[in-house]
Amino acid sequence: MTKNVWIKHATLATLRSDQKGPRSKEAMSDIGLIEDGSLWIEDGIIQAVGTTDELEKTYGQKEADVIDASSRLVTPGLVDPHTHVVFGGTREKEFEMRLEGASYMDIMNAGGGIHATARMTREATEEELIEQTSRRLDSFLTHGVTTVEGKSGYGMNWETELKQLRVMRALQERHPVDIVPTFMGAHAVPPEFKGREDDFVNVIIDEMLPAVAKEKLAEFNDVFCEKDVFTPEQSKRILEAGKKYGLIPKIHADEIVSYGGAELAAEVGAISAEHLLKASDEGIKAMEKAGTIACLLPATALYLREEAAQGRQMVDSGVAVAISTDCNPGSSPTTSMPLVMNLACISMRMTPAEALTAATYNAACAINREDTIGSIEPGKQADLVLWNVKSYQELQYLFGVNHVQSVWKKGVQVVGNP
Amino acid sequence: MTKNVWIKHATLATLRSDQKGPRSKEAMSDIGLIEDGSLWIEDGIIQAVGTTDELEKTYGQKEADVIDASSRLVTPGLVDPHTHVVFGGTREKEFEMRLEGASYMDIMNAGGGIHATARMTREATEEELIEQTSRRLDSFLTHGVTTVEGKSGYGMNWETELKQLRVMRALQERHPVDIVPTFMGAHAVPPEFKGREDDFVNVIIDEMLPAVAKEKLAEFNDVFCEKDVFTPEQSKRILEAGKKYGLIPKIHADEIVSYGGAELAAEVGAISAEHLLKASDEGIKAMEKAGTIACLLPATALYLREEAAQGRQMVDSGVAVAISTDCNPGSSPTTSMPLVMNLACISMRMTPAEALTAATYNAACAINREDTIGSIEPGKQADLVLWNVKSYQELQYLFGVNHVQSVWKKGVQVVGNP
Repeated sequence: MTKNVWIKHATLATLRSDQKGPRSKEAMSDIGLIEDGSLWIEDGIIQAVGTTDELEKTYGQKEADVIDASSRLVTPGLVDPHTHVVFGGTREKEFEMRLEGASYMDIMNAGGGIHATARMTREATEEELIEQTSRRLDSFLTHGVTTVEGKSGYGMNWETELKQLRVMRALQERHPVDIVPTFMGAHAVPPEFKGREDDFVNVIIDEMLPAVAKEKLAEFNDVFCEKDVFTPEQSKRILEAGKKYGLIPKIHADEIVSYGGAELAAEVGAISAEHLLKASDEGIKAMEKAGTIACLLPATALYLREEAAQGRQMVDSGVAVAISTDCNPGSSPTTSMPLVMNLACISMRMTPAEALTAATYNAACAINREDTIGSIEPGKQADLVLWNVKSYQELQYLFGVNHVQSVWKKGVQVVGNP
Repeated sequence: MTKNVWIKHATLATLRSDQKGPRSKEAMSDIGLIEDGSLWIEDGIIQAVGTTDELEKTYGQKEADVIDASSRLVTPGLVDPHTHVVFGGTREKEFEMRLEGASYMDIMNAGGGIHATARMTREATEEELIEQTSRRLDSFLTHGVTTVEGKSGYGMNWETELKQLRVMRALQERHPVDIVPTFMGAHAVPPEFKGREDDFVNVIIDEMLPAVAKEKLAEFNDVFCEKDVFTPEQSKRILEAGKKYGLIPKIHADEIVSYGGAELAAEVGAISAEHLLKASDEGIKAMEKAGTIACLLPATALYLREEAAQGRQMVDSGVAVAISTDCNPGSSPTTSMPLVMNLACISMRMTPAEALTAATYNAACAINREDTIGSIEPGKQADLVLWNVKSYQELQYLFGVNHVQSVWKKGVQVVGNP
């Protein structure tokens, strides 16, 4: 049993709402602010939320660790709903080569690119992957992230896929950050299946998916639906097959070209569609109707010097938006959800309130966790961040800075001085 | 007398070179790397630099605080050569209003914009400004910045200009971060001088500059040379007048339109020209010939959603490039030089080595301090950063994260656990 914790005098952004499910339009702006707010935690669960005056009456005489959060913001722990956090090795030399003028082919010939990560992930032992991933999760935690989704997909063979998923299971036991697993066998076509992609799709459907289901290694099933990777038809086959095992569909959609990915996400009932830089208006409309969450990745767009997704327009058209780092070694080697929130405002013209909703409650919805995390309400897990800023506006305005002061995971302080 | 400090087993980026003065072209890539490097500090001054083996022979038996920096990068303290760090109040509500759809005029009518900062700076007492600025300097320090330049310019009257410059002088005594003062009377035209801008230029030349010089309140003289602000002719008059008092010219040049600012910087012998988003090819060439440093501000470009300056091309054409946060409440409310280095690579296609040179040695040159800071060499001030990364490439590749682990200012550890 952990000690009771009483956080008082905070500017509380509770994200509390009577509405269930992903928030869209005006609901994304309602972040449930309480000035001079207080919350009471017992056994890692939030028991009460209100003004400090209100809680004083009930809890004033009880024993607790008291945190004075005067003039500072407290929010739910951030949720990162889209990462490729489990991988072997890093590719900083490749980053330098590119800036020194090397071409894509130069880098490929030097053994770089996604195949470098696949090789290093294959070569790493399970224990090495746990160690490397654990350090990245530490960094997530210092940036206020208390839950991440994680994808397999760097193996391109079953053995490595299995290893990635087992690493996530092990980390779920060992690391304070919760890690929610997604199977992404269809991340790239392995070189040996070039020209007979459907055979690889069959391997995923006939061999990998049943094995994932049998060991209960994942909750979601994700596909890179993109020109020259997997077609909408192939993606649909894989996602429908996963549904039979209870795996919820997600889709990397319309990142590089407009390819019908958003439309497919709506059609198969995906919980979320990712990237969407080139999503069509019809696709957005279909997602809105189907209630598919748009998971937008503005740090990736920055890193690749692409125009960010149309976050403002998606919110305005009624799509529920979540945001994520896309943490991966090739196109977004960052762990900073605070920067992603800043970029949601700067590059995608979302408001500070919408950015916070997208990084907490809607992000929790995108990984089917809104019943336990993503807002500050009685009964929810006490995953919380105390920020060294006085308001949710300042959190986005003073950009490029990690304002995290303290983090609690299930009621236990894991960042900052106790 | 402070204790001796011995930092050993570091990956040292010394930035040491035989070449004097600002570095350009290939010299920007030579960051003086020493693997398993060591440095010895006495009385806040670097006494010796070399491999750990080399220093072991001379210093192995002497008493010191020993820092084991194994597998981690050590660089000179970062230098931010362009900030408006002294100002009253913040404008996060305005940031939100804009994202909620408010127009420029809506914000002006609500009392926002630069005039809001001018008002809040006028209203703040000297002590209040010291307190607010001191917190920003704390944030700079946690981001590895040990010296900043600071500009006046939010007063638009002599009384407030004087107050800003006195605040810098006071902070130079009170805060570990060194602050190098620039007079920028010509930052904006005060409303009462609208239509008779030359009269205001005369006030600057006849009244303000002599007063600045008399009290020795600044080392540099900066002008916002821009369409509808100060013309090249007015800018030239102000800068030439300052030179008579020993004030070194700087110019905010070609930020919004191509206006001959780069050319003027070369002509008047400015130490640096700032922004340069719209600088002409002829202007860049003139700067290269004159040895004027380009001080580039990619965080401002990001925040304003502008195309960043042509950093890659400037380096290639032989201009010495420095980079800076431009920290200010309107167009770049950040204190993160690490992010600015990342953006130098991502947005301006500079290499990781060039970005580091631009944020240390060349930045020191831009504020005339290269004799004491900006590199790790015997005789220089022991301003140092230990980064929680293994290489200078990783520092830029793992973007959006503040990797600072420890900072020393004049040999005293001011960030991180001692």
